[in-house]
Amino acid sequence: MTGALTAQQAQSRKEFRAFADRHIAPHADAHHRAQRTPPETIRLLAEEGLLGLPVAEEYGGGGCDAVTLGLLAGELGRACSSLRSLLTVHTMVAHAIARWGSHSQKETWLPRLARGERIGALAVSEPGAGSDAASVTTRLTREGDDWVVDGHKKWITYGESADLFLVVGRSAEGPTALLVERDTPGLRTELIEDMIGIRASMTAHVYFDGCRVPAANVLARPGLGVSHVVGAALDLGRYTVGWGCVGILDASLEASVDYAATREQFGSLIKEHQLVRRLISNMYTDAHAARLLCLEAGRLRDERHPGALAATSTAKYFAATAAGRAAADAVQIHGANGCSSDYPVQRLLGDSRVMEIIEGSAQLHQVGLAEYAFQERGPRSDR
Amino acid sequence: MTGALTAQQAQSRKEFRAFADRHIAPHADAHHRAQRTPPETIRLLAEEGLLGLPVAEEYGGGGCDAVTLGLLAGELGRACSSLRSLLTVHTMVAHAIARWGSHSQKETWLPRLARGERIGALAVSEPGAGSDAASVTTRLTREGDDWVVDGHKKWITYGESADLFLVVGRSAEGPTALLVERDTPGLRTELIEDMIGIRASMTAHVYFDGCRVPAANVLARPGLGVSHVVGAALDLGRYTVGWGCVGILDASLEASVDYAATREQFGSLIKEHQLVRRLISNMYTDAHAARLLCLEAGRLRDERHPGALAATSTAKYFAATAAGRAAADAVQIHGANGCSSDYPVQRLLGDSRVMEIIEGSAQLHQVGLAEYAFQERGPRSDR
Amino acid sequence: MTGALTAQQAQSRKEFRAFADRHIAPHADAHHRAQRTPPETIRLLAEEGLLGLPVAEEYGGGGCDAVTLGLLAGELGRACSSLRSLLTVHTMVAHAIARWGSHSQKETWLPRLARGERIGALAVSEPGAGSDAASVTTRLTREGDDWVVDGHKKWITYGESADLFLVVGRSAEGPTALLVERDTPGLRTELIEDMIGIRASMTAHVYFDGCRVPAANVLARPGLGVSHVVGAALDLGRYTVGWGCVGILDASLEASVDYAATREQFGSLIKEHQLVRRLISNMYTDAHAARLLCLEAGRLRDERHPGALAATSTAKYFAATAAGRAAADAVQIHGANGCSSDYPVQRLLGDSRVMEIIEGSAQLHQVGLAEYAFQERGPRSDR
Amino acid sequence: MTGALTAQQAQSRKEFRAFADRHIAPHADAHHRAQRTPPETIRLLAEEGLLGLPVAEEYGGGGCDAVTLGLLAGELGRACSSLRSLLTVHTMVAHAIARWGSHSQKETWLPRLARGERIGALAVSEPGAGSDAASVTTRLTREGDDWVVDGHKKWITYGESADLFLVVGRSAEGPTALLVERDTPGLRTELIEDMIGIRASMTAHVYFDGCRVPAANVLARPGLGVSHVVGAALDLGRYTVGWGCVGILDASLEASVDYAATREQFGSLIKEHQLVRRLISNMYTDAHAARLLCLEAGRLRDERHPGALAATSTAKYFAATAAGRAAADAVQIHGANGCSSDYPVQRLLGDSRVMEIIEGSAQLHQVGLAEYAFQERGPRSDR
Repeated sequence: MTGALTAQQAQSRKEFRAFADRHIAPHADAHHRAQRTPPETIRLLAEEGLLGLPVAEEYGGGGCDAVTLGLLAGELGRACSSLRSLLTVHTMVAHAIARWGSHSQKETWLPRLARGERIGALAVSEPGAGSDAASVTTRLTREGDDWVVDGHKKWITYGESADLFLVVGRSAEGPTALLVERDTPGLRTELIEDMIGIRASMTAHVYFDGCRVPAANVLARPGLGVSHVVGAALDLGRYTVGWGCVGILDASLEASVDYAATREQFGSLIKEHQLVRRLISNMYTDAHAARLLCLEAGRLRDERHPGALAATSTAKYFAATAAGRAAADAVQIHGANGCSSDYPVQRLLGDSRVMEIIEGSAQLHQVGLAEYAFQERGPRSDR
Repeated sequence: MTGALTAQQAQSRKEFRAFADRHIAPHADAHHRAQRTPPETIRLLAEEGLLGLPVAEEYGGGGCDAVTLGLLAGELGRACSSLRSLLTVHTMVAHAIARWGSHSQKETWLPRLARGERIGALAVSEPGAGSDAASVTTRLTREGDDWVVDGHKKWITYGESADLFLVVGRSAEGPTALLVERDTPGLRTELIEDMIGIRASMTAHVYFDGCRVPAANVLARPGLGVSHVVGAALDLGRYTVGWGCVGILDASLEASVDYAATREQFGSLIKEHQLVRRLISNMYTDAHAARLLCLEAGRLRDERHPGALAATSTAKYFAATAAGRAAADAVQIHGANGCSSDYPVQRLLGDSRVMEIIEGSAQLHQVGLAEYAFQERGPRSDR
Repeated sequence: MTGALTAQQAQSRKEFRAFADRHIAPHADAHHRAQRTPPETIRLLAEEGLLGLPVAEEYGGGGCDAVTLGLLAGELGRACSSLRSLLTVHTMVAHAIARWGSHSQKETWLPRLARGERIGALAVSEPGAGSDAASVTTRLTREGDDWVVDGHKKWITYGESADLFLVVGRSAEGPTALLVERDTPGLRTELIEDMIGIRASMTAHVYFDGCRVPAANVLARPGLGVSHVVGAALDLGRYTVGWGCVGILDASLEASVDYAATREQFGSLIKEHQLVRRLISNMYTDAHAARLLCLEAGRLRDERHPGALAATSTAKYFAATAAGRAAADAVQIHGANGCSSDYPVQRLLGDSRVMEIIEGSAQLHQVGLAEYAFQERGPRSDR
Repeated sequence: MTGALTAQQAQSRKEFRAFADRHIAPHADAHHRAQRTPPETIRLLAEEGLLGLPVAEEYGGGGCDAVTLGLLAGELGRACSSLRSLLTVHTMVAHAIARWGSHSQKETWLPRLARGERIGALAVSEPGAGSDAASVTTRLTREGDDWVVDGHKKWITYGESADLFLVVGRSAEGPTALLVERDTPGLRTELIEDMIGIRASMTAHVYFDGCRVPAANVLARPGLGVSHVVGAALDLGRYTVGWGCVGILDASLEASVDYAATREQFGSLIKEHQLVRRLISNMYTDAHAARLLCLEAGRLRDERHPGALAATSTAKYFAATAAGRAAADAVQIHGANGCSSDYPVQRLLGDSRVMEIIEGSAQLHQVGLAEYAFQERGPRSDR
């Protein structure tokens, strides 16, 4: 199924896979159990240039296209969803700065993010505001040349270790996005343990208690924090999460195939049982469909096609629900072994549940995708 | 989603849709009720050159690529699954002749099939042999320079009106394929009425009672009828049926969108109800996924990629089951109106049920696709 | 699974089944194709006393309990959903009269309905008012001692042949229910042909053009037509439809079991294929669950338990969606034969689709059942 | 839905719920995290007489009927699946002794088990033998008046703390069951940590290294270990696991209802969103169906009805798959909170996955239930 990739993309994918197979996958279960991503692992990603891959070359990044970024997310997701989520939030922050940042903000932050000297995290969600970003209550108060930030963010992926937070709060002008560095006085984080999935993602509470940041840290303009800044970041996040789900599908399929090809029951390999084959056939089919939907979204992004937004939502929705099915079926195929921590499928199951919730829950897409269907059927665009 | 088509393919698709919207779709329900496809409709297809589209130009065909043939099947399927099934069986016969026919067989038949002067039909299924083609019981006996055919074929699409039958029977050498013309003495057909779907497809019993055909009518060699001749035809049939299901998905989605945008209930348009939106979002997602899977299968066919076989099965399996879901949901969205013959969704439901059974039932794919998964995971091909 | 029935109920069930097996089932497919229920068949039901079974004995009925009525609906539904729907609408009308009728209305109508001399039909739905009965537009105008009825009812089960219509229209006082006899001048019916299911149910348009009926024909009081009269009837209708779906489940299961036990494929009976067994196991499980839910609803009705309403909706929702799955799977198991009219599963599929729409669509229950869940969790009732 | 319980059963259920609500549920998440059930909790169950409830009164048990045992399992399962699994394995051992034990075995063990002085565990599964009990490899060698046990059992629920193991091994006579006390020299256990579910169940490896037990410890006869002893125990285990799944359904529903009634999103309580209501309606429906199926199985057990076996399998299969759906949907309704350990739904999800695997996996039932369907349709029993 690499036919439709350019030679360069196909080559990149091979390298991503080799890297992930060597450096990430073998440790994923251990990190999952330890509920930590060690800094060396992140450093490895940085040294490989993977954290700056989509950042423009003028800022020291790899300047890769959307398809290539997706392939990277897919390979990381196949190896470890936590690390894939690091890529997601880090590139969301970089993308928001690239898209809406001032010249000086770009100069300051993009090279550091591209080199992985700084890890970015998105600080939007709050205990009472998840899918509905516009309802954040974190207060942003203008005081002279500074903004003062007071609030409580929750579910901040890599919040426990990130260096730079893209925070969305409410100012007099409305939802406003600004950058807050980790060492800002008044900022405190607290790890959220025992999550159902992406357990190595160091997801955290982030508390802002009178954090003072220069007005120059505001992205775009006050009031545009959700509609513009988060909007752009979220669309990219959805895209890489979709690809991460392709990775979960691949990993579920491979684990199931390997297990079914060696496990005996009632005198034959379970791969000979039709009911096991059915589950594997469904994973195989879904993995192909999810990959093609993500590829299509990537191509439309690269073409700046207006349909990219719809294609990205479609891809994420399909891939996330398919990953949920696949991981549950993979556990089922593994039987009691699937319930243990000796096999990766337990981890895949938990990770997949998170995927159906973040970056647009299944329900949000069930409401929203129809809107595209109605629009496309109106004055009919040429799909 | 036309981004990945060539300009020529995109143009062809537009023309196919315009043709189907003008000449086919408006009459589909009437033909469904009459349980007949009028000869003029078939003639229209022939005049437009659509029946010979994939036949090589040297035989008077359009010489189109697999993707373009798929686009045609998709547009016909969106308008009328019966006519799409005419395309399917007709091109299966032409393809079998092109692939396994002798020089003289090609010279004789391909131009006539390409021009639509003769309509081909596949006569493989029997009352006791469906998915399992190797178990046919139709007898082929060699008598001098002739073969004598005795047997009973069933579920022969367009059997009631086709001119040329590609028959598979059992000879001393094993399963053997040969061509039998309609006017052969001893050949009799009988329409099967009141089918659940593709009701205009003139599906029939075909009885062979001592039909005598020249030995030159055998395709490939005696004994290769299933492994080679039917194998090739079936793969192509599966491909166009998959695309036909994309058409059913499109038609279900469009009917649902149009209905939801005008029907009121409890004081608002039903398109505002989340539960209706969910069904539409799912159809929309499935339609995209199915189309991309079919396109990928088409591209791999055009590249003669060894993965084309797996991709075709994957596409057909996904598209057929998705079409089944979509048509049932479309009926549900239409409520009582969906149960009537005033809306096309009733027809789509019946047609979709047939799609999950023909050219490889869902169960057959549930067993078979896993095999590809096992193979690809062995000495790993670069998917 | 008859353990929990009383001896009398178990005996009744046996008789119902014997009657249906002898007189109804053998003709169901023919009536389906003819799109008519012959009057003799209805007369047979009447002579057996089945049309008056739930009517009180003082009015010449059988005075049976709700469980027994359910068993009858189940057995009719197993044989022929159209006739089961006759039972449904006929007993809905009788029930509405028994519950809300005046002494004289009961005296007049119940004996006739109980003996089957008159067949009752519910005339509530309109082209623009289905699930939402309160939005009917049929006009009821008071003129002296009469009411004049003007309007157009649609989807009226057995509307083409019923004798007595329970009509709901809009009067100055609000939604109002009254009885209209078939021979009332200005009443005209028109059969709706080619429906997806219950094709023998003679479903019709009913047109009222200045129909004049005595004020004494109003049920309950003007203004209570939906909240009281239709409410009571609908609850009973939902109950018998739920049981009818149990019948569809039974019929789908039995047809599948019989077919799988005799059909060979790839050298073995298809009952040996795990994928076929899975479909049958699911039908078997669903049939048991649906039956128990309906039985529970019946018991609670018989106890006049306040939970009966919730239990009835739960039973109908589960049974209807399960019947839809079972009928589709039964067609799938039958392969090409399932697409033909030679086997009853084609009929079962169409009938099941109607069941998911009438007497509360699946969507209506998806919204409404949650309400019971919220209520029961409030000041917790002892479930 | 208590209508069909006897007054005594309804009263018992109330007490079980009160006990579980007071003593079990509040600590379930803590035990889940600690991966231990504290001995005091087990002592509490024992003191309440709950561990001996189904043991005959002559042996100091409660002599309860199957329905009451099921109600207990349901209430424990609603509070904590690990403790419910303690009840399951403990009563399986007691049941096997009561059914197949000698007079002296009963005298010795049943009173101790009934009082909870000894906790029983079933030691059948091995690394290579799960659903397929007949393939165990643990060796049983006769040496004079003793048997010597050598082998490795895995996935032994409460293996880490149980006192008495019902072991199945392979002797010269075939699969043989015998009782081994914890303090037998050569017996060693090892906790299996980080399981996906029932994490407080102290599931363990049990190693037997030349364990010597008196021949009098053999249950039934050598050779009958699987067909008779495990067969009876498994049927009971399946029954209480089925009820445990009803408990998971109840807990998922209640958690979802409570959350939906207080969580706001986009300006309204999420209980007002149709898509949330749909998930809750489905849980509500499934919870009712599962409960009725389990009740029916219980009644048939109490009647010693031959259909009890089929009814138990049906109930377990339905309840386990429904619990899996419900728990996943409950997580989804809780959004990010559902992914945390602050809410019980994370635990319910993991527990539910185990339920689809133990005591007959979903796949095993998909193959096996069809067998009942075929049998019942043969010389037709009166279902």
